[in-house]
Order: sequence, then C-alpha cells, then structure tokens
Amino acid sequence: VVDKGVDFAQYFCTYSFLYHQKEMLSDRVRMDAYFNSIFQNKHHFNGRTVLDVGTGSGILAIWSAQAGARKVYAVEATKMAEHARLLVKANNLEGVVEVIEGSIEDITLPEKVDVIISEWMGYFLLRESMFDSVICARDRWLKPTGVMYPSHARMWIAPIRSALGDQKMSDYELSMEDWYGFMDDTKTYYGVDMSVLTKPFSEEQRKYYLKTSLWNNLHPNQVIGSAAIVKDIDCLTATVEDIVEVKASVSSSITVENTWLCGYGGWFDVHFRGRNEDPAQQEIELTTAPSMENSTHWGQQVFILHPPIRANEGDNLNVSFSMNRSKENHRLMEVEFGCEITQYSGKLLPSLRNKFFIE
Amino acid sequence: VVDKGVDFAQYFCTYSFLYHQKEMLSDRVRMDAYFNSIFQNKHHFNGRTVLDVGTGSGILAIWSAQAGARKVYAVEATKMAEHARLLVKANNLEGVVEVIEGSIEDITLPEKVDVIISEWMGYFLLRESMFDSVICARDRWLKPTGVMYPSHARMWIAPIRSALGDQKMSDYELSMEDWYGFMDDTKTYYGVDMSVLTKPFSEEQRKYYLKTSLWNNLHPNQVIGSAAIVKDIDCLTATVEDIVEVKASVSSSITVENTWLCGYGGWFDVHFRGRNEDPAQQEIELTTAPSMENSTHWGQQVFILHPPIRANEGDNLNVSFSMNRSKENHRLMEVEFGCEITQYSGKLLPSLRNKFFIE
Ligand SMILES: Nc1ncnc2c1ncn2[C@@H]1O[C@H](CSCC[C@H](N)C(=O)O)[C@@H](O)[C@H]1O
Ligand SMILES: Nc1ncnc2c1ncn2[C@@H]1O[C@H](CSCC[C@H](N)C(=O)O)[C@@H](O)[C@H]1O
Repeated sequence: VVDKGVDFAQYFCTYSFLYHQKEMLSDRVRMDAYFNSIFQNKHHFNGRTVLDVGTGSGILAIWSAQAGARKVYAVEATKMAEHARLLVKANNLEGVVEVIEGSIEDITLPEKVDVIISEWMGYFLLRESMFDSVICARDRWLKPTGVMYPSHARMWIAPIRSALGDQKMSDYELSMEDWYGFMDDTKTYYGVDMSVLTKPFSEEQRKYYLKTSLWNNLHPNQVIGSAAIVKDIDCLTATVEDIVEVKASVSSSITVENTWLCGYGGWFDVHFRGRNEDPAQQEIELTTAPSMENSTHWGQQVFILHPPIRANEGDNLNVSFSMNRSKENHRLMEVEFGCEITQYSGKLLPSLRNKFFIE
Repeated sequence: VVDKGVDFAQYFCTYSFLYHQKEMLSDRVRMDAYFNSIFQNKHHFNGRTVLDVGTGSGILAIWSAQAGARKVYAVEATKMAEHARLLVKANNLEGVVEVIEGSIEDITLPEKVDVIISEWMGYFLLRESMFDSVICARDRWLKPTGVMYPSHARMWIAPIRSALGDQKMSDYELSMEDWYGFMDDTKTYYGVDMSVLTKPFSEEQRKYYLKTSLWNNLHPNQVIGSAAIVKDIDCLTATVEDIVEVKASVSSSITVENTWLCGYGGWFDVHFRGRNEDPAQQEIELTTAPSMENSTHWGQQVFILHPPIRANEGDNLNVSFSMNRSKENHRLMEVEFGCEITQYSGKLLPSLRNKFFIE
C-alpha cells in the first residue's frame, strides 16, 4: 500500500516545477512524436472525447483540442494543473479542454472517452510506475471501442562498450581511499576505531557507484551487439500484473570485432498505431534508442559490468533479464542480469550474475 | 501535524547514509568542539547517565562512555542505529552504551538522565527543526539537576559583500533567455502560445536563483559590518514556542570604506557551559562564523540583495529580521529582512524589504 503523502513528497513534487515540464517540452523527439501522432491521425480526435492522463503543462490536451476533439479531460495530480488551466485559456480552448486537478485514481469524469492519451514513460520505460495510472484510467474511462495513445511500448537491452565503468570504479576506489584516511584520523585524533564500518561503508558506496544504473546518451557505435526486446506491451490490454515484473531470456550476438563488453544498455520505444478496428492512418514511433541526432531526455540506462570482458564478433550472449519494483519505493526498480557467453570458438565463459538498482 | 512517513522521506532518509554521517564526522571544528566539551569536562560524565539525541554513527555516545559515563542511551531514528550498535561493540562499550532505534518522541527510557548531549544544529542553526526533538527529550528525560550539551546557542547576521548575487542574477537571466527561445520554438513548431506562463516561470526561477539562501563559506573580509545576534537560546529552558518564530531588530554599522552591501550572512554558534549549579570546568565554543582556517560543513547562509547597494564606513543599518517555518515543511524556513540604511552623512536611503527561503 502506498502512502499518498510520501508518494507526493518523493515523486509528484518534481512535476510541480515549470522548469521540469519545460525540460520535457524541449525534448524534440518526444514532442515531434506526440505532435505527429495527433495531427497525422486527426480522425482519432475529430469530434471525439479525450482523456489526458497527467496533463502537466496541458500540451497533449491542447493538441488534442486543436486536432478537433469535442471535449478533452486533462487530469493532473500536482499544482501544475493551475498552469495548464492558464495555458488552455490563453490558447482559447477553455470551451473544449477541462483541466481537473487530482489523481487519476481519485477523480470521476461525467462520461467515458474515445481516446486516452498520456506521456507516462519513465527511464527504461517503467521507472515511475506511472503506467499503472494509465491502466486504471483505461479500465474506468475508456469506451470499449476506445484508442490508446501510445498504443504499444517495448523495452530493449543490448551489450555495450563504455568508459563509465572504469570511471565509476575509480570514483569508488577514491572514495574508499578517503575512508581509510578518515578512519586513521578518527582513531588518532578522536580515539574511536571505525574499522567495523568499513564493510557497510564500502557496500553503500558500491551500490551508489557500481550497482545503480546510470543515465547516459550512448553513441550508436557503443552498442556492440544485437539489441533484444525484453518486454512488449499492448497498452489496450496490459494489466498491472503484466508489468509489475518483467522477465525474459534473450540472446544477443556481438557484432563488433575485438571489443569489450562493459555492460548493458536499456531503452524503450512506444508506437502510436491506434487499435485494430480503428487503426492509425500514419503510424508514429517514438524511440529512445542510442542515436547521434535524435537523443531524448530519457537517454539510455547503463548497467555496468566491471571489469569489462573481452568480446569478439560472433560471440553469443544468453541473457536472462528480470526487473522488479523496489520494496521501499514502488516507483523505483531492481534489475538482474544473468549472462552466459559462448565464444565464437565454442568456448563457454563462466556465467555472470549482476544486480542493479534504477533509482 | 507532521506525517511521519513524509518526514522520513524528506528528512531522515539522508541520515541513513554512512556517507553523510562521515561528512559530519570529518568536520574538524565540529568534532573538536564536542570532543573537548566532553573530555575537558569529564566531571559531567564520570559515573553519570547520558542521553544522546540522534546518535547517528554513535560518536557522541561513545565519547561520553569513554569519559566515564555509567550508562549512555543512544537514540537514533534511522537504520544508522544498526551501524552505531556495531561501532559501540567494536569499541568495547556495549556494556555502557545502549543504542535504541526509534524517534526520541516515541521511545521510553528506564530512567531519567544527568546529561543530554546532541548535535542537532542545521544550517543557520534552526533549519531541520531538530531542536524540537531535543526539547522533547529534555522535558521527558532530563533530571531536574541535569546538564545540556550544548547549553547555549545563538544566531548571528551581518552585512556582507559577495559576487554570488551577480552570478545568480546572470544565471536567472540566462534561464529567462532560454525560456524566450523555448516559447518561440513551441509557437513555431508546435502551435502553442506559452507566453501566459512567462510570469509564473520567472517567479519560479527568481525563487530558485534569487530568493533561496545559498550555502557559502564566506571569507572574513566579506563581512563588511558588525555582526548582530538575532537569537539567544538557553538550551535548558527554551520551549518550542520560543524558537518557532525568530524576530529581532538589530543594528549594524558598516566597518569598511567604499564598499558594496550585497546581502546578509547568517550563521550560529553554540556553547558548552554546563549549568549554573554545575558549570563546565572548561567552557567550549563551536562557532560557524566566517573564518579562514576553521570553516565547517555548515558554512554560512547567504541572503542576496540585488542590485548591491553602495556602502561606506560609518553607515548604519537598522535590520528587522524574522524567521518562520515554511507551511509545507516545518523543517524548512522562510526569512524576512527589513533594512533601513542611514548613511554616515545622515541621509536615509529608501528602506528595503526582502523575503528568502531556506530550503
Ligand atoms: N496518477 C496520476 N494522476 C494525475 N496525474 C499524474 C499521475 N501520475 C503522474 N501524473 C502527472 O503526469 C505527468 C507526467 S509528465 C507528462 C506531462 C505532459 N503530459 C507532457 O507530455 O508534457 C506529471 O505532470 C505528473 O504529475
Ligand atoms: N526525533 C529524532 N529521533 C531520533 N533521532 C533523530 C531525531 N531527529 C534527528 N535524529 C537523528 O539525529 C542525527 C543528527 S546528525 C548528528 C549525528 C551524531 N550525533 C553526530 O554528532 O555525528 C541524525 O542521524 C538523525 O537521523
């Protein structure tokens, strides 16, 4: 059970800053995808009713109205709702867009809707667990014939090369050196022997530097093997049960010769395809895959393997992936990667097993 | 009324990291003051019972035991209590120091104590509002003859010179320039007019850059006038009512010729004097005033005045100061400075009134 007050303090608070909304509104890849998904599929919006789950500044609700929606319900949990209301009015849409301040879980609408639109994706898709709220909205407020925007979502992983591991390892080592100096001083000057805390301190620092996934904008050539899908979500039918745990066994072959396996990269894409009975005229994709020109504020999540492992073209990785919500905070994740490497020669390397936190 | 879960998420969480405890344990000025206050006043500890409010790593409890305490109750709200227990044991004091995990407000002790020791001071003394917990502990668990460590605390303010104001003003201006570019792009590419949000965005940014006090280690020569005490606390008798609001009218004269008044600096000191009937043998002071050689992790809080005001030796400032807790979070503060400047010539400048947030 989630304490609402705690959830607000830990999660929603950041969304009440225009500064943060602006960061999302400045992400061109994100903006283009939603903009095109709406304006190239006006038939989904024209004369229809729309629910925007987590409207933030109100942008998706405004576009929906501009695309001809009859009525748009724009629900936002934070005080940002007040700014959204201003923005709707300044764009002369107060007759169409109704901004409702409240959690989607708590509010009621006067009618069911034809479209649910939402930008609910967190790092590596599921961080923030906001898709739960979209599912809740869908089950309560989407007509049986309704359409989800986006309609599909996928999680990807791939083997990568990166200098981050060396960097973080050296940060960790520096921090431990500092600890030893601190320990000596505390004994010398203050008569207290801290050595019993060396182990817990080093575990804390290891978690921080080495076992927490890192935000990174990978260059495509840092991806050294085939990418694999670990989760494929149909937004129209997925349940919370389907996403609360992600588990997959996938294989990936190294596509670069004479390289280093330094870890795994994780990202997502979503698609706007409408629904089978009422498909999109133009299917739109929003991908957060490594890219030189189309990077997003989501970047990719990097999971460090240290030390790196020599790898070569044709080596095969069998990766067992699992992701669960952290017990302390359902919006954060814990990830496990198991990996069996069969070299091109047929030689099997000792298997790997690594746990990470997405904080 | 404070939601315990929220308070934990916002406040206590940081203290559960050894990394953070280590920062405090590495503050030599802080450590020396507490160390000396204990070991130069062993008569207060020898054979006596002690309560350490918020023991963290356990350091003050351990010193109290080393100074001869018969029994030390070491209370800590976070999981840090487990590390404290380990440390106590490793230093062979588990017969004397009893670590209790819990809020001081919730726990019970088997007896009243002779000494309450605590390091409860936040930025500008009262940020974190932890002294409330010390008051609660004192009223419930200190014997009528008991001693408080520290025994006294004071808040200081002084006029200062600083380049931070110019820096923050330019950060603010850059952020607004960026906003205007963002606004144009959003109109051009996405058909939405954001101008109605310019005012709330600029207010948000002003609050962030200009109205939030800044942590700084001031050089003593940045203090351009006499420092004044705005609060004097007797830890043995102060009530929550006494500290929930701080209000004072003080005057300060500029002591530097041909200078700029760029804002106010705020800091604190505490003293270890024992109690009248049972005084310290060696009075110890812990000051966080601007200093070249004895800077602390508390630094000083800087409250920016922008634009700066020409000031000269002999100018007189009449400052009315008030500080209240923020409504959203009782551990954060809102501060107001009123200032009347009478120049050496007798000329009265237009009066100033500025609000700040201590976040
Ligand atoms: N359960 C819930 N109910 C209402 N709003 C929610 C919610 N969970 C998250 N949100 C809001 O959803 C927003 C997600 S960010 C996306 C904002 C906007 N739709 C845009 O695309 O720019 C945040 O503003 C957050 O406060
Ligand atoms: N009401 C309360 N009950 C118990 N512990 C508290 C408390 N309020 C704050 N604390 C704890 O008090 C500590 C203050 S920091 C000081 C730690 C230690 N005494 C030292 O001097 O190094 C933190 O560890 C915090 O978790």
